[in-house]
Amino acid sequence: MNSDSVAMTDLSGKMYKPETVCIFGTGDFGRSLGLRLLQSGYSVVYGSRDPKNSLLLPKGSKVMTHAVAACDAHVVFVAVQREHYGFLSSLASDLEGKVLVDVSNNLKRGLYPESNAEYLSRLVPGATVVKAFNTISAWALQSGGLDANRQVLLCGDNADAKQQVVDIAQSLGFTALDRGSLRAAAELEDLPLQLFPLWRLPLNIAICLTAFIFFYVLTRDVIYERVTNGKDIAFRIMISLANKVFPIVSLVMLSLCYLPGTLAGFLQLYNGTKYRRFPDWLDRWMLCRKQLGLLALAFGFLHVLYTLVIPIRYYVRYRTNVYVISLVKGNKTYEFDNTMSWRCDSYYSMGILGFGLFVLLGITSLPSVSNSLNWREFRFVQSKLGYITLLLCTAHTFLYGWDKFLKPASYRWWMPPAYMLSLVVPCVVLILKLILITPCMDRSVTRIRQGWERQGKTSANGRDTKTNYPLIA
Amino acid sequence: MNSDSVAMTDLSGKMYKPETVCIFGTGDFGRSLGLRLLQSGYSVVYGSRDPKNSLLLPKGSKVMTHAVAACDAHVVFVAVQREHYGFLSSLASDLEGKVLVDVSNNLKRGLYPESNAEYLSRLVPGATVVKAFNTISAWALQSGGLDANRQVLLCGDNADAKQQVVDIAQSLGFTALDRGSLRAAAELEDLPLQLFPLWRLPLNIAICLTAFIFFYVLTRDVIYERVTNGKDIAFRIMISLANKVFPIVSLVMLSLCYLPGTLAGFLQLYNGTKYRRFPDWLDRWMLCRKQLGLLALAFGFLHVLYTLVIPIRYYVRYRTNVYVISLVKGNKTYEFDNTMSWRCDSYYSMGILGFGLFVLLGITSLPSVSNSLNWREFRFVQSKLGYITLLLCTAHTFLYGWDKFLKPASYRWWMPPAYMLSLVVPCVVLILKLILITPCMDRSVTRIRQGWERQGKTSANGRDTKTNYPLIA
Amino acid sequence: MNSDSVAMTDLSGKMYKPETVCIFGTGDFGRSLGLRLLQSGYSVVYGSRDPKNSLLLPKGSKVMTHAVAACDAHVVFVAVQREHYGFLSSLASDLEGKVLVDVSNNLKRGLYPESNAEYLSRLVPGATVVKAFNTISAWALQSGGLDANRQVLLCGDNADAKQQVVDIAQSLGFTALDRGSLRAAAELEDLPLQLFPLWRLPLNIAICLTAFIFFYVLTRDVIYERVTNGKDIAFRIMISLANKVFPIVSLVMLSLCYLPGTLAGFLQLYNGTKYRRFPDWLDRWMLCRKQLGLLALAFGFLHVLYTLVIPIRYYVRYRTNVYVISLVKGNKTYEFDNTMSWRCDSYYSMGILGFGLFVLLGITSLPSVSNSLNWREFRFVQSKLGYITLLLCTAHTFLYGWDKFLKPASYRWWMPPAYMLSLVVPCVVLILKLILITPCMDRSVTRIRQGWERQGKTSANGRDTKTNYPLIA
Repeated sequence: MNSDSVAMTDLSGKMYKPETVCIFGTGDFGRSLGLRLLQSGYSVVYGSRDPKNSLLLPKGSKVMTHAVAACDAHVVFVAVQREHYGFLSSLASDLEGKVLVDVSNNLKRGLYPESNAEYLSRLVPGATVVKAFNTISAWALQSGGLDANRQVLLCGDNADAKQQVVDIAQSLGFTALDRGSLRAAAELEDLPLQLFPLWRLPLNIAICLTAFIFFYVLTRDVIYERVTNGKDIAFRIMISLANKVFPIVSLVMLSLCYLPGTLAGFLQLYNGTKYRRFPDWLDRWMLCRKQLGLLALAFGFLHVLYTLVIPIRYYVRYRTNVYVISLVKGNKTYEFDNTMSWRCDSYYSMGILGFGLFVLLGITSLPSVSNSLNWREFRFVQSKLGYITLLLCTAHTFLYGWDKFLKPASYRWWMPPAYMLSLVVPCVVLILKLILITPCMDRSVTRIRQGWERQGKTSANGRDTKTNYPLIA
Repeated sequence: MNSDSVAMTDLSGKMYKPETVCIFGTGDFGRSLGLRLLQSGYSVVYGSRDPKNSLLLPKGSKVMTHAVAACDAHVVFVAVQREHYGFLSSLASDLEGKVLVDVSNNLKRGLYPESNAEYLSRLVPGATVVKAFNTISAWALQSGGLDANRQVLLCGDNADAKQQVVDIAQSLGFTALDRGSLRAAAELEDLPLQLFPLWRLPLNIAICLTAFIFFYVLTRDVIYERVTNGKDIAFRIMISLANKVFPIVSLVMLSLCYLPGTLAGFLQLYNGTKYRRFPDWLDRWMLCRKQLGLLALAFGFLHVLYTLVIPIRYYVRYRTNVYVISLVKGNKTYEFDNTMSWRCDSYYSMGILGFGLFVLLGITSLPSVSNSLNWREFRFVQSKLGYITLLLCTAHTFLYGWDKFLKPASYRWWMPPAYMLSLVVPCVVLILKLILITPCMDRSVTRIRQGWERQGKTSANGRDTKTNYPLIA
Repeated sequence: MNSDSVAMTDLSGKMYKPETVCIFGTGDFGRSLGLRLLQSGYSVVYGSRDPKNSLLLPKGSKVMTHAVAACDAHVVFVAVQREHYGFLSSLASDLEGKVLVDVSNNLKRGLYPESNAEYLSRLVPGATVVKAFNTISAWALQSGGLDANRQVLLCGDNADAKQQVVDIAQSLGFTALDRGSLRAAAELEDLPLQLFPLWRLPLNIAICLTAFIFFYVLTRDVIYERVTNGKDIAFRIMISLANKVFPIVSLVMLSLCYLPGTLAGFLQLYNGTKYRRFPDWLDRWMLCRKQLGLLALAFGFLHVLYTLVIPIRYYVRYRTNVYVISLVKGNKTYEFDNTMSWRCDSYYSMGILGFGLFVLLGITSLPSVSNSLNWREFRFVQSKLGYITLLLCTAHTFLYGWDKFLKPASYRWWMPPAYMLSLVVPCVVLILKLILITPCMDRSVTRIRQGWERQGKTSANGRDTKTNYPLIA
């Protein structure tokens, strides 16, 4: 490397590492940001209304009045709450040509008609505003990004200004993700205020299902017993009923997780193309399959624990002892039922294997695990193993029921046992899937997913099929 | 920052963010890529054979014929299936000097003699081909990289062209990893088609072991009983036998996970250096230790569940009741056996603690957890705690067997109880490890692992020991 | 893009990808680094004392004497152990103006008064030393960063030199995090030698608590029985006692995890501001809450397993059988106790739900999961759900105890049952939290956490409240 290129490197060094960064605001975020910038070799100047009384600032930084502080730096971080933005309009001339980085968040959604960043841009029209860092907490800045989200989302109207912020973010050990023009700022400002938006629909489904099954089981078991026999067995709510509700909800939600996939398959077959949009409800359903599955796993986990405590329950020990005493006193013979032991053991075995696979599905849903799988591996686990899990859990439920559905006594008040209800959706999903994987159907679906379109359909959506080359299914 | 350097920054802004990116192909991947590029501030032009009929493209993008589309852009993404590459040779003159990014994947491995990227490079010799983005799915592009693999692997023969693709990848929120020259393209194209390559050997070992132990236990327990006593106890396959097979496979695989490490230690001692390559079989074995351990954990998990359902099995409750009834009727005294309770409780306690540590090992194997550990911490957990786990599980098995090995009745048809088989490998590993950690052996191994070589060995591999400064063990 | 900007790109291509990188040292790390550099398109030259005898080096690299090797490259990686740095001073003139990257680690902490990098800088004053890559293992380099820590920490006094190392790190697929001046090298060199520094305090607390509770329970149960009744029930140590110790330690540690938060709330109320530092002990306590919680979860997990094996213990089966026999022989009536079944089932139900939520808290503590949550979601899970977990576990313990505290027989040797001890801290935490969430207190705390300060306090810490705009709580 000759001296010329070294000179160039030096130049570029200056280019990409502005000597001085200015921060308006000396709160938690401003202080943490300044400390991190100092660690990464930047000079940091704080802008404050009362520079003499600003304490607790990181060692090595300077504090000046806003106007003086901004003067030295090309990039100014505005770490001030929106309500106090007013003073910035008076600094308009000092901020002319600067890059203003808006890092602010609001306390609630929808407080203001326009995003903080756009408001800032209106207040200081001479400066270029970039929205960034608002999804990073002061804590993530302090902990050096080692144990926290390292992705800085940013947006803005000027590519150069954005590049400067990207460079700073990268120097600080973050990765940057450009989200487009400043109009995206409202969306970025909403991100830290969201509370599990993708979990909302699955959670509501789980709550409704749980409530419905609970009252169904309550009526059929506890209230029926009370009304018919006058016996109070309300204590069974705590474990026996819970252990009916949880597995049912778990199985139904697991099958709800695979139902949209099969429906989509049939829809594509019917449409003869994969390029027609699914109806909105199906789209939303497809997008929350992971959450549906994880909730089903949580309910399955509770079911396992509720099942395993059975033998240490007072009621169960009481009943067993009473049974043995009655056997002894009645002097009855006690025959071993071979079918019963086959059924009972198979039922547990299916359940355990199903739960084991289910846990595996859950583990591969962890972000760090699913990121280390390629698309084919992810599909193998989530689709193939998923259907086997569903099959095992359905078989587990069938074996649990055995011949109960034949006995009239099972239909108290014309209500079938709850486990039967839980079998409807899984059976539908398994039958639909069975149809889809028959050789002839499978061939059609595969061709459609590889971009093929049925002849009559081309004109229907007016597209030239030849320009469609889907690469990754 | 003076005005000069600002000017340079502006210049560099133009340099690193080409205004326009062209995408050939309007399939899933092309559309997702275009949308993401638009969000990151690029202009996107699609090349299509029939621009007027290309629908569903992201808002803000333009569609033109291939030749016109390519003309405005310096980087052209070829999101077209390999079979349709033909038309590109006719565009050779329009693509002269452009960077062609090949993002394609094949449906199967080994379909073509040369990689898609090299084929593309042959078709359009005037352009520079970079293979990239093929490991990223359309889904990962849509979801903004927030919940998916964010690493773009790329390769190509021209450093500048690669740098431009790296810049685009980084603007899109991905990290880029350069994998070398275009000859690496075949490897990159294989990556999305792989199905758990590292899991293959461990899975085969697990399947063979499971089959062998299952038939051994089946013969010894079920068939022996049938032949000798004419009793059908086949129902025991579902749980009792499964619960013999799973713990045995788990223990053997856990010890297989630690065997190669001890063998390597002895080999290094024998060689007197750590710079001689291990034999191939040992290398392959060492590389799949994590997978061996995780499979062992899965089998251990099933063992735990199978054990915990014991008391709620029909067969077990039947046997218990029959036993109690026989006690009552026989009017026998029922003595408390203190040794038995010590043994039984210790046996469970060892098992629980061993399983607890095993789960800890599993958790530290999760990518995100192991990445947050330094080398010393990782070794502490996986080596020290791993050997303690193995020790606890082996002790658990010994306590389970207790004095069974002394009783001739245990050797049905000359076959020892299955648990004895499972103890062979763990005992070998623990004895070898015990030898390796004796002070004198430990010192030698440590010195060798720090780069020391036995004198006579230097000439053997003809290397100057002084230039070897291994830093990280 | 016109031809000019293309020329600039080519130039920048040369600028950021130095053709040749030199590596001193041909050990594990040097070889792995060289291989990775070659894959990323760099030329690699090794410096060796005896170039003719350096084997096993990656294909495509050259080996020369140190002086010749350094001459071609601008960046020289010093992959040599500190003890061998001596020879570098003789190369001072050849290394003039070069960037020396110190990648070394020591075998122990505190071996030398100054960091390796600073020592290197003193030996070769004409070169610019950058400390980097020492936290990356040879293994991580080989595995292509796909399955290992991808963050390169670096420090140095020269921004340009650091930028060159950052560029190399990024080309190799790593992200770089600048940790400041060369004085930070000692800290970076300590990182790979640390052994769970954050876990030390929580582990010590866990060990002390476990030991104390164990001896308490041992005295109260086993020794008391021995002394008073002369009965040896020492076998109960293995499971019965363990299953008293683990849940108690778990509950106490879970509450210790939430105690500092409530204390901090009261302290902020008392101070009237959030800008006064917490006392050191509280700061340290706050920082290890995650570790306290995870240890509590581990103990809770063991408690669950120890509880679930109860019915298959020899002792328990013996006692049950003896009880049934005594019932039969005594011809006593055996009354069903409805309260008892309510209590017993509620107690298990609380425990299971509490454990389920606890596992959820544990899962959201995994780095990859917590990184995918925003601040509000993380707080919701760790704070709201955490307090519900604590509430459920405390209720579980109260229901377990029931009316035991009323019975004088429970106070053997004036020692109350161990479970009572475990309730002290959780009750304190829950009461303090209850006070904090009363409307009036909650309003004050929220205002303070949003940056508000009580009037009288402003002068106390001499700061201008108006410049404080905390953004993220």
